[in-house]
Amino acid sequence: MLIDIHSGDDLLKEEYMKLAINLARATAHQTSPNPAVGAVVVNNGEIVGMGAHLKAGEAHAEVNALSMAGDRAKGGTIYVTLEPCAHFGRTPPCADLIIKKQLSKVVIASSDPNPLVAGLGIEKLRNAGISVETGVLQEEADALNSVFFHYIRQRTPYVTLKMACSLDGKTATAGGESKWITCEASRLDGHTQRRIHDAILVGIGTVMADDPKLTARSESIAENPIRVVLDTHLRIREDARVVTDGAAATWIFTGRTIDGDKARRLQSEQVTVIRLPSESIAIKDVLNDLGQKGVTSLLVEGGSAVHGSFLKAKAFNRVIAYIAPKLIGGRDAVPAIGGTGIRYLADVPELSIKNVERLDQDLKVTLIPKAGDF
Amino acid sequence: MLIDIHSGDDLLKEEYMKLAINLARATAHQTSPNPAVGAVVVNNGEIVGMGAHLKAGEAHAEVNALSMAGDRAKGGTIYVTLEPCAHFGRTPPCADLIIKKQLSKVVIASSDPNPLVAGLGIEKLRNAGISVETGVLQEEADALNSVFFHYIRQRTPYVTLKMACSLDGKTATAGGESKWITCEASRLDGHTQRRIHDAILVGIGTVMADDPKLTARSESIAENPIRVVLDTHLRIREDARVVTDGAAATWIFTGRTIDGDKARRLQSEQVTVIRLPSESIAIKDVLNDLGQKGVTSLLVEGGSAVHGSFLKAKAFNRVIAYIAPKLIGGRDAVPAIGGTGIRYLADVPELSIKNVERLDQDLKVTLIPKAGDF
Repeated sequence: MLIDIHSGDDLLKEEYMKLAINLARATAHQTSPNPAVGAVVVNNGEIVGMGAHLKAGEAHAEVNALSMAGDRAKGGTIYVTLEPCAHFGRTPPCADLIIKKQLSKVVIASSDPNPLVAGLGIEKLRNAGISVETGVLQEEADALNSVFFHYIRQRTPYVTLKMACSLDGKTATAGGESKWITCEASRLDGHTQRRIHDAILVGIGTVMADDPKLTARSESIAENPIRVVLDTHLRIREDARVVTDGAAATWIFTGRTIDGDKARRLQSEQVTVIRLPSESIAIKDVLNDLGQKGVTSLLVEGGSAVHGSFLKAKAFNRVIAYIAPKLIGGRDAVPAIGGTGIRYLADVPELSIKNVERLDQDLKVTLIPKAGDF
Repeated sequence: MLIDIHSGDDLLKEEYMKLAINLARATAHQTSPNPAVGAVVVNNGEIVGMGAHLKAGEAHAEVNALSMAGDRAKGGTIYVTLEPCAHFGRTPPCADLIIKKQLSKVVIASSDPNPLVAGLGIEKLRNAGISVETGVLQEEADALNSVFFHYIRQRTPYVTLKMACSLDGKTATAGGESKWITCEASRLDGHTQRRIHDAILVGIGTVMADDPKLTARSESIAENPIRVVLDTHLRIREDARVVTDGAAATWIFTGRTIDGDKARRLQSEQVTVIRLPSESIAIKDVLNDLGQKGVTSLLVEGGSAVHGSFLKAKAFNRVIAYIAPKLIGGRDAVPAIGGTGIRYLADVPELSIKNVERLDQDLKVTLIPKAGDF
């Protein structure tokens, strides 16, 4: 990176923070359930250390950057994308390390999203006489960890609805044909989305109709997301791929009334049957349970009825729509979002378009709720 | 415009043609049923004349440009976006004028779209010893007159399907609410589309439900498109706005079996009832009749069933979709394209995306059939 030493302090500050954010971005999908964090140490106008958090359980970004800096950290400034921790987790508090290394200043982008500990790291640093500046490029840094921030605050996964449909919102023809409406580039991108989510969710209808593998097409089981199936009455076939293929864990959520023998037969190293206390499956119950089990991000792939349930429950944080330049038409064709739908326009959640991309012949549109988390 | 006199001949040629195309583009929506045409006359590396066709019945582009050039046309080159005419229409043939003015060269973008006269103008010029070059920036020039070219070849209007729907393809909720799904910028753009079409078409359902004015919000009747209503059983109310408001002509297409007295009562200076010979309305019959009546461009505004009929008939040349960042959901919500739909994916027409635009919070996507005209 080229730093223009003639630019003002603020510009320089943002350049260093941008570098720290880029370091964090590079590891964004390998740190779960931890946030992605980057750090840059500067002394006398020279970068003397750079680092990122690579993996949960391993060194924090500050540790890596300060280790690179060595003695040259003393008197310097550390730029870090997230408020340094003040508590003992799996590693010692980074605030203590910064104090011990005698830095003179800490510049921070995002505050700690956990309301219980937010500000504690900053307080500790200030008490030690270190100058602390906060909020530098905060929006950009926050966006990088939207999943983590959501999870820390809500303790439920960050939910992405993935739609793949024609321009007129159909996901299958009236004859039930759905292979393929979107182009190969869209489908590939969809598989990439699987890889960067902790879990993917489908309805039993999709499993019965397609017997999908629901993997990220990765050889490594560790890289394949957990497969979550909503199956109120435990209708799943015992020879379904998600039950037998050994490619990834499968969690089947059911309602209260199910065949207990079948549930026991299904239960295995690969399969967990999770029986909810109500007759039908409430989306909020599923999300709470997934959150408790440490799932921070969930990709909801449908089908139509499942998407309808998530929409009605207002239980999503992002929508990724792959739109094919096709018109299918028909009152009886399968809509991308089915179920009972929203009756009044005033109740329809407003979204805002974050990104529009061409994927070969298709469009990929990414949206988030205007109100932020519902 | 800045012409770089150091660039090669081909580059210069394209610059002059671009100027001619821009002149044509400026008048594109006021020449119907004639094509938009621009012309530039160059002599000794200087532009000596520029012109465009302004209105049907008035001077062709060549006439205006050559009139500006005066004596300086002699020995020069004329760049014209469309092959000069060789026949007497409402004005004398332009090929004759070019010969009379003693130009040395004619550079043409588009050939005459009418297969009966294509090449005749070129032949006449060459026979007079004038050098003729064709196909310069042809694609760009063709696109400018896609409506005219279609009409000349097919003798039916160029049909644009206008959809306005949520991201999941709904045009009304299950409760029937549809005002408003798209944002104001989209609706304004929709009105602009009305102004640049000869006619707009809706189904009787839309007229019954909304009693719309269907005008381009213009004070001038001449600027409002003809309102076409598909009304198989002549259910229209005799006090409907399109019947009584005097804002624009209204043509009501019906099937064979209707109340003749009501038809006679409706018939007026404003209203024409057109009874088709079949029980139900065949889209192709409507388009043929509109074509015969000189309608070159038709904006189909829906509703859902009408769009379904145009899709099934493969009777459209362009789709303009205004997509709001909203999810409505529901099996029973009204789809943008209804009717019976297309049963097999193999029969679904492939479109290609020509343009994607943000209109305030919405997306505007313009598509054309991949195969060109069906």
